[in-house]
Amino acid sequence: MKNILTFGEILVRLSSNQGKRLSEANTLHVNYGGAEANVAVSLAQYGYRTSIFSRIPDHEISKGILHYLKGYDVNTNLIQLKGTRIGTYYLEVGAGNRSSKVIYDRAHTSITELTPEDLDYETIFKDQELLHVTGITPALSDNLVQVTECLFKEAKARGILISFDFNYRAKLWSKETAGQVFKRLLSYVDICSCAELDFIHLLGYEQESERLSYPERLTTYYKKLSKEYDNIAVLFSTKRENLSASTNQLTGYFYTKGQLYESPLFSIDHIIDRVGGGDAFVSGVLHGYLSNWNEQNIIDFATAASVLKHTILGDANIVTEEEVNNMLNNGSQINR
Amino acid sequence: MKNILTFGEILVRLSSNQGKRLSEANTLHVNYGGAEANVAVSLAQYGYRTSIFSRIPDHEISKGILHYLKGYDVNTNLIQLKGTRIGTYYLEVGAGNRSSKVIYDRAHTSITELTPEDLDYETIFKDQELLHVTGITPALSDNLVQVTECLFKEAKARGILISFDFNYRAKLWSKETAGQVFKRLLSYVDICSCAELDFIHLLGYEQESERLSYPERLTTYYKKLSKEYDNIAVLFSTKRENLSASTNQLTGYFYTKGQLYESPLFSIDHIIDRVGGGDAFVSGVLHGYLSNWNEQNIIDFATAASVLKHTILGDANIVTEEEVNNMLNNGSQINR
Amino acid sequence: MKNILTFGEILVRLSSNQGKRLSEANTLHVNYGGAEANVAVSLAQYGYRTSIFSRIPDHEISKGILHYLKGYDVNTNLIQLKGTRIGTYYLEVGAGNRSSKVIYDRAHTSITELTPEDLDYETIFKDQELLHVTGITPALSDNLVQVTECLFKEAKARGILISFDFNYRAKLWSKETAGQVFKRLLSYVDICSCAELDFIHLLGYEQESERLSYPERLTTYYKKLSKEYDNIAVLFSTKRENLSASTNQLTGYFYTKGQLYESPLFSIDHIIDRVGGGDAFVSGVLHGYLSNWNEQNIIDFATAASVLKHTILGDANIVTEEEVNNMLNNGSQINR
Amino acid sequence: MKNILTFGEILVRLSSNQGKRLSEANTLHVNYGGAEANVAVSLAQYGYRTSIFSRIPDHEISKGILHYLKGYDVNTNLIQLKGTRIGTYYLEVGAGNRSSKVIYDRAHTSITELTPEDLDYETIFKDQELLHVTGITPALSDNLVQVTECLFKEAKARGILISFDFNYRAKLWSKETAGQVFKRLLSYVDICSCAELDFIHLLGYEQESERLSYPERLTTYYKKLSKEYDNIAVLFSTKRENLSASTNQLTGYFYTKGQLYESPLFSIDHIIDRVGGGDAFVSGVLHGYLSNWNEQNIIDFATAASVLKHTILGDANIVTEEEVNNMLNNGSQINR
Amino acid sequence: MKNILTFGEILVRLSSNQGKRLSEANTLHVNYGGAEANVAVSLAQYGYRTSIFSRIPDHEISKGILHYLKGYDVNTNLIQLKGTRIGTYYLEVGAGNRSSKVIYDRAHTSITELTPEDLDYETIFKDQELLHVTGITPALSDNLVQVTECLFKEAKARGILISFDFNYRAKLWSKETAGQVFKRLLSYVDICSCAELDFIHLLGYEQESERLSYPERLTTYYKKLSKEYDNIAVLFSTKRENLSASTNQLTGYFYTKGQLYESPLFSIDHIIDRVGGGDAFVSGVLHGYLSNWNEQNIIDFATAASVLKHTILGDANIVTEEEVNNMLNNGSQINR
Amino acid sequence: MKNILTFGEILVRLSSNQGKRLSEANTLHVNYGGAEANVAVSLAQYGYRTSIFSRIPDHEISKGILHYLKGYDVNTNLIQLKGTRIGTYYLEVGAGNRSSKVIYDRAHTSITELTPEDLDYETIFKDQELLHVTGITPALSDNLVQVTECLFKEAKARGILISFDFNYRAKLWSKETAGQVFKRLLSYVDICSCAELDFIHLLGYEQESERLSYPERLTTYYKKLSKEYDNIAVLFSTKRENLSASTNQLTGYFYTKGQLYESPLFSIDHIIDRVGGGDAFVSGVLHGYLSNWNEQNIIDFATAASVLKHTILGDANIVTEEEVNNMLNNGSQINR
Ligand SMILES: [Ca+2]
Ligand SMILES: [Ca+2]
Ligand SMILES: [Ca+2]
Ligand SMILES: [Ca+2]
Ligand SMILES: [Ca+2]
Ligand SMILES: [Ca+2]
Ligand SMILES: [Ca+2]
Ligand SMILES: [Ca+2]
Ligand SMILES: [Ca+2]
Ligand SMILES: [Ca+2]
Ligand SMILES: [Ca+2]
Ligand SMILES: [Ca+2]
Ligand code: NI
Ligand code: NI
Ligand code: NI
Ligand code: NI
Ligand code: NI
Ligand code: NI
Ligand code: NI
Ligand code: NI
Ligand code: NI
Ligand code: NI
Ligand code: NI
Ligand code: NI
Ligand code: NI
Ligand code: NI
Ligand code: NI
Ligand code: NI
Ligand code: NI
Ligand code: NI
Repeated sequence: MKNILTFGEILVRLSSNQGKRLSEANTLHVNYGGAEANVAVSLAQYGYRTSIFSRIPDHEISKGILHYLKGYDVNTNLIQLKGTRIGTYYLEVGAGNRSSKVIYDRAHTSITELTPEDLDYETIFKDQELLHVTGITPALSDNLVQVTECLFKEAKARGILISFDFNYRAKLWSKETAGQVFKRLLSYVDICSCAELDFIHLLGYEQESERLSYPERLTTYYKKLSKEYDNIAVLFSTKRENLSASTNQLTGYFYTKGQLYESPLFSIDHIIDRVGGGDAFVSGVLHGYLSNWNEQNIIDFATAASVLKHTILGDANIVTEEEVNNMLNNGSQINR
Repeated sequence: MKNILTFGEILVRLSSNQGKRLSEANTLHVNYGGAEANVAVSLAQYGYRTSIFSRIPDHEISKGILHYLKGYDVNTNLIQLKGTRIGTYYLEVGAGNRSSKVIYDRAHTSITELTPEDLDYETIFKDQELLHVTGITPALSDNLVQVTECLFKEAKARGILISFDFNYRAKLWSKETAGQVFKRLLSYVDICSCAELDFIHLLGYEQESERLSYPERLTTYYKKLSKEYDNIAVLFSTKRENLSASTNQLTGYFYTKGQLYESPLFSIDHIIDRVGGGDAFVSGVLHGYLSNWNEQNIIDFATAASVLKHTILGDANIVTEEEVNNMLNNGSQINR
Repeated sequence: MKNILTFGEILVRLSSNQGKRLSEANTLHVNYGGAEANVAVSLAQYGYRTSIFSRIPDHEISKGILHYLKGYDVNTNLIQLKGTRIGTYYLEVGAGNRSSKVIYDRAHTSITELTPEDLDYETIFKDQELLHVTGITPALSDNLVQVTECLFKEAKARGILISFDFNYRAKLWSKETAGQVFKRLLSYVDICSCAELDFIHLLGYEQESERLSYPERLTTYYKKLSKEYDNIAVLFSTKRENLSASTNQLTGYFYTKGQLYESPLFSIDHIIDRVGGGDAFVSGVLHGYLSNWNEQNIIDFATAASVLKHTILGDANIVTEEEVNNMLNNGSQINR
Repeated sequence: MKNILTFGEILVRLSSNQGKRLSEANTLHVNYGGAEANVAVSLAQYGYRTSIFSRIPDHEISKGILHYLKGYDVNTNLIQLKGTRIGTYYLEVGAGNRSSKVIYDRAHTSITELTPEDLDYETIFKDQELLHVTGITPALSDNLVQVTECLFKEAKARGILISFDFNYRAKLWSKETAGQVFKRLLSYVDICSCAELDFIHLLGYEQESERLSYPERLTTYYKKLSKEYDNIAVLFSTKRENLSASTNQLTGYFYTKGQLYESPLFSIDHIIDRVGGGDAFVSGVLHGYLSNWNEQNIIDFATAASVLKHTILGDANIVTEEEVNNMLNNGSQINR
Repeated sequence: MKNILTFGEILVRLSSNQGKRLSEANTLHVNYGGAEANVAVSLAQYGYRTSIFSRIPDHEISKGILHYLKGYDVNTNLIQLKGTRIGTYYLEVGAGNRSSKVIYDRAHTSITELTPEDLDYETIFKDQELLHVTGITPALSDNLVQVTECLFKEAKARGILISFDFNYRAKLWSKETAGQVFKRLLSYVDICSCAELDFIHLLGYEQESERLSYPERLTTYYKKLSKEYDNIAVLFSTKRENLSASTNQLTGYFYTKGQLYESPLFSIDHIIDRVGGGDAFVSGVLHGYLSNWNEQNIIDFATAASVLKHTILGDANIVTEEEVNNMLNNGSQINR
Repeated sequence: MKNILTFGEILVRLSSNQGKRLSEANTLHVNYGGAEANVAVSLAQYGYRTSIFSRIPDHEISKGILHYLKGYDVNTNLIQLKGTRIGTYYLEVGAGNRSSKVIYDRAHTSITELTPEDLDYETIFKDQELLHVTGITPALSDNLVQVTECLFKEAKARGILISFDFNYRAKLWSKETAGQVFKRLLSYVDICSCAELDFIHLLGYEQESERLSYPERLTTYYKKLSKEYDNIAVLFSTKRENLSASTNQLTGYFYTKGQLYESPLFSIDHIIDRVGGGDAFVSGVLHGYLSNWNEQNIIDFATAASVLKHTILGDANIVTEEEVNNMLNNGSQINR
């Protein structure tokens, strides 16, 4: 079993019932999310000792967050209780031909006030073997760009693996700023999640010819990036076909040592909750990679894990390794 | 922005949860509907100043109706608070291979007692530019046949556009009576929604040869009717394929000046609520027509609007023009 | 109208909301089930006078069971109120790519303590014309193996038809024991539900060549069994394709006098609740058989009944003969 | 065990959640009620074979009514499925200083069309020993005045006991008409529920001096009525103090052979649902009277039964004799 | 009918179910509040043409706010759609011996960015006859102190009545700052709500001797303030006894021309929602005052209105004048 | 901070909504309880490092239990995942004059199969400073009598404090057997919760004269027991007055060194959930005792803690020390 640290904002999510517009909702479901919290929860279900480094205010709503994380075996000792706001987002759950809608209310939150002075590296990195951060964290404030870089540098120095998921959010910052920051961060990264549009919009790559298949184009981008940053050992991403808000198709790609591995195409019908699907995928890859599985197993497992997430209400993928493998092998029988 | 008047009964709808038979329901969802109210609500979301002329009793349940309509920007000043019954219907929401079931409880309602003496044309038609009524209204009582005719005649005299949706309901009256009334009403109509079965069952047309495609047959009917009633400027309808109560396909048709325009075929999966889909379609056509869009845009928009309605619980299509266009152009992404 | 008796355990079912893992559920839906209760309820909706012979404790939860059965016209006079436990099962309702999960809590229940001494044949069999039992009943305890045999023997002696559904449950007993018991029971049976895997795993048949189609293989098994047990007049089963927990395909097979009849293949989308689908099928076959319908009608009706069950929350198929036929003939229109 | 018949309308009740105005409700609770149905249900819980004679339409909502009554052991064979409307009422559940509000929607219902020609006395009265009706039934239509009289006359002729509860409803008819009808009906009645205001407003009695205590005044009225109608064997009623919608005080009075018996004063706090409290009281009196209990036991039991009703959501008093007695004797312990 | 303007923040309120801690809540009820919105809604139910001047962002959640206000007849034309945050608060609903808890999340909200430059007096004050603001508004930002003063000055100049409710919130600002601001504002005020602690903590008055009764002390404070600010025509407040979170006692006081008027003491049991009780009281006073009722009627009505508010879930007092008077006169009967 | 161990069964509790009989419930609330789990949870909220030693099966429902305990900071490492049944109980939540009802379904559960061989003392007692058990644990099986004695003996040997709560449950065993077992266990106990009826029914004491006040009688019993078992340092209990299921009065008593301390009498109105009130009281006493508070503070705090528990749905007292003290000092204000 390995110790894993994630760093990012923990969010309160308030979602309407299916079929209800947010503007008509008179009850909202409460869940907790945030990309890095989602990864910490998912990896804890696979048996890792996970912690999240974050900051939230010291009040009742935070208690719910701590209850949630501890209940799912995430260590909360590194969460600082300070500041005045928790990041919140409203989710209008789509269905059929109406897509989901997210309204962020995450300005001025506690974590955005975190500065490099708040970092006690000894405590934070004690016994950690991997650090996972997504591009949402530096998007939240200038402070957090600095803090992320400090953490990456220090982790590197201590021989801790660094995992980075681009997770670009247009509602939080511009493509230009994000690209500049990501380029600096990439020089520390060992494990990296990014896809075609990230290369084109953020890293400034030319789009490869559409006559090439998607896997061919992706291989080209991944090759190029691996050359530029030879610290990056593995790259991965999914390709999603949106047939409707309820029906998607998903394929996973995993690249290492010049070779791209592709999962089967999964048909996802009757989607319950698509949010966190990317985090479930990243968690699956990290689990497979840290377990030294062969590449095809890694990408099949990670994509299946992501598919399974779509059937669970809430941001986090509350499933065990055994359940993911059952789904991969057996499909959808009642077990009795 | 234009002023629009609709005339018809406002209904209380009581619906069971999905998967529950009405006979087992111990809670029911309350919504408000009625074809003309639905059109008034939808057009208000597109920015029109809409009013509904109707009658409901003066009690608590009516308050809920007024709250609902005002909250969605429908002017309720023309609603008379009089009489003793509100039209009510029970909806057993279908799913998969079980179709929805409607039980009407709308006899003896307040609106059925409305007579031509109750009509104060000055107040009713003040500043109106279009009047919309469906075939349900005259189906409710003999009084309402008279009232509808009076309103049509007076609207015509004042140069107000008249929109009519056949909306034949077999549970309310016979095909014969409906046909006779509709024929009289049609001589006032500018804008008209009706489909193949209406021509055959209500207007007594011969069915065109099945060797003709549906659009070809429809063109024939529409041509014929346009000749008979040269006051009718545009005709339109949808064709629905019921794969199951959860999965449908929908195509829209719009006819004007001898030419039929056809929308793409929309696949609708994971239907939340099909009721009001026709009213959403009519509202979309009226919006496009009053905005002088080109014909293809009108029918694409109206059909997409109807498709979107299927994803919302309740009779009315609570969506903006921008949301319909997003769906037409982008499909079902999470927007964040 | 005929009198029908079933014998088996009545279960309390506690199920989570769709999208919720059982481990996160803070409310559970209460329904009542048990294969033989489900058949009794379904047949009562078709107009039969049904009774269930069973045993449950004498307390508040049992009151709910009695209310449920009486409310759906099942006679409860043969239910003994004795012992201390009610069989319970937890159902995690699957969706899309996540299958449903059942956790049984049915050891040491009241019915398992029933012995042949508790049987008052005069009362139990008074006016009965058919006895239905599934393989779950003898699986529950050694006592119940004995009791089932005693009932079969006595029913036979009284000229009462005997219907048996294999319903093998791996969580309750081994294939070996089940096979031995079933072989003894089969010598009393007139009407029998079993499928390919039952023949191979329980009766020890060789699997027929995969080059034969499924109907061909099934015909071979059924022929063989009919020869071995010439008391068996009809055999039937369904074949299910699990595309996902929400989307299945179902075909029904009915065999009699050397001939296999096959229903159309039904596509089932947006499944609400798959539990009890088999019991709905058996009930449909029993209704058709007792009504002397022709074979094709029997299998079409029974399979359609099973399909309809998938749209209803709860174990039992609360539909009328008319509703099944409507579905067979008309598909999924709103009826208004 | 005795056979008891009640005659009256069965109502669908739609109630808001506590704290919600009806005009804001987006879900409503479904229960079934009607004074005579409530009495039939309550007496069935005490072990009587009860039936209700009534009429409701033949559709899905009626199925729910039949399920409810059968589930609580009320025989529904005398319910005619005919006509088009079910009586419905909306209940805004009060709390604290806001009283409950009832909106009736019960004009033109099936039962109001019942005429003396629809009465098959042999079937209706077979094996009955007591007939219970309240003043609501003749209030519903002129037809029902006639039908009630016919039933009273015929019951009398057959030696069946007649129980009558005044239950005057100002929303249904005037005091004058009610008084005239009640005076005619009283000449058949053996067992009668009425209180001070009934004497003054309906029977035209002078109010007794306020210097007399309530029990003294009531004794005077009861004496007088007993003289006038010597067929009346027992008279009874409750006196309620409304401290708030959540807190009441209740005392029961039972009069027979010149003597008034008074229950203790019960304090009722945290009222869940007051509707049906009177019917629970009447049921308690009928049970005690038919069981030949002594007078003090009768009135204590009946008042305690009514008190218990206030703790149960829904119109009917779903409690056993044992539970009423436990409450009388032990108050409110957890039993474990 | 009069035109009334209020000015203040509109809040989203998220509240847990009774008996649930906020930290365990998995659903929250959505309501809308804010002291000035509550007053606008309540006065609209009494028949006034009310408007609220405010600012909220332009997104889905704001749509819900607009729907709510329009549905309750509050004009929303003066609400500016600008900025990024809506004020939010979490409410843990207390019960019995556990008090309610409020967590504010209202920093950096849209309204706090409003400046005097944003004020278009012509539009804002068109046809207004009274302006109501509470002390919460200037507490929100320095900008809003300025804006409030500007509005008061301009209203005064236009002869518009000014109503001010102290509504001191310790979570928003210090007593010192509040006191200084309030003193400046008071010189414009005609109608003023404040109580003993306001005088002592905010205005720096000495506490009057405890040997004086509360009404006597209050009279002294009111006299003094009336002398200091002879523009203030009426003063009023309530005194609340907290027996528990579910049981309170409330008395209202109204002072004018040297005379204090006192309502009866109201016992409030089974409190559903205490929030907004003060706003309901102020609304009642304003209604009585603008209607020129006599003083005792004003204070009885206003206090009864406040009491009624405690029975309704949500911040606003959705009751009519008739309902308040019914409660005053009749207590808690079911009306049927 | 101290380390505390409890030993006992963890229960799944399924409770109906207020106002619903268990027999009508179609949803049940899921909570987790068990006296010793409740104490572990409550003490964890006061800051202790608590663990529970128990056994539950290895399946989905147990996952919910572990999530719950970990989320509330209870160490679950000593919980063995073995056996087949979880103890379950159904709770019909009473209200007003109807008391709550508990139905146990806890025979044959995992923990009853625990034997002394399963005890690894080193692991179990590592770092523990206090062991708490209630009389429910030995009531569950003969095995558990033995196991409890072994644990008490071993704890004693290790100098760990032993806390014992009589918690006699008539549904689990006879008074005689319980008395014999408790007498043996008492010789190890340091801290003991028992009340008058325990002395009389279980320990065979004579009832003291009713002319003595309750505190006087209790002092006599406590003195006597302290003499018999001089190992017992403190004794305590509550006295409850059941005015109704919604309204109680509670007084706490704490005895040490010959002296009885009495809390104020607390009025508890609008009870949400009384279950676990005793465990909340014991937790409060343990916290005060381990914190060396003075005796009056201990009993006031513990009784207030118990009172607060009545306002929270679920078995455990999810409150902090600060919240209990706030309630003691301030009553029920909204804090904003
Ligand atoms: Ca992502
Ligand atoms: Ca979540
Ligand atoms: Ca339509
Ligand atoms: Ca609607
Ligand atoms: Ca089956
Ligand atoms: Ca069921
Ligand atoms: Ca009554
Ligand atoms: Ca009821
Ligand atoms: Ca206030
Ligand atoms: Ca206890
Ligand atoms: Ca709990
Ligand atoms: Ca509890
Ligand atoms: Ni939901
Ligand atoms: Ni939790
Ligand atoms: Ni995510
Ligand atoms: Ni629903
Ligand atoms: Ni669905
Ligand atoms: Ni419609
Ligand atoms: Ni549900
Ligand atoms: Ni089944
Ligand atoms: Ni409810
Ligand atoms: Ni039922
Ligand atoms: Ni209460
Ligand atoms: Ni009643
Ligand atoms: Ni709620
Ligand atoms: Ni609304
Ligand atoms: Ni307020
Ligand atoms: Ni609940
Ligand atoms: Ni306990
Ligand atoms: Ni309550």
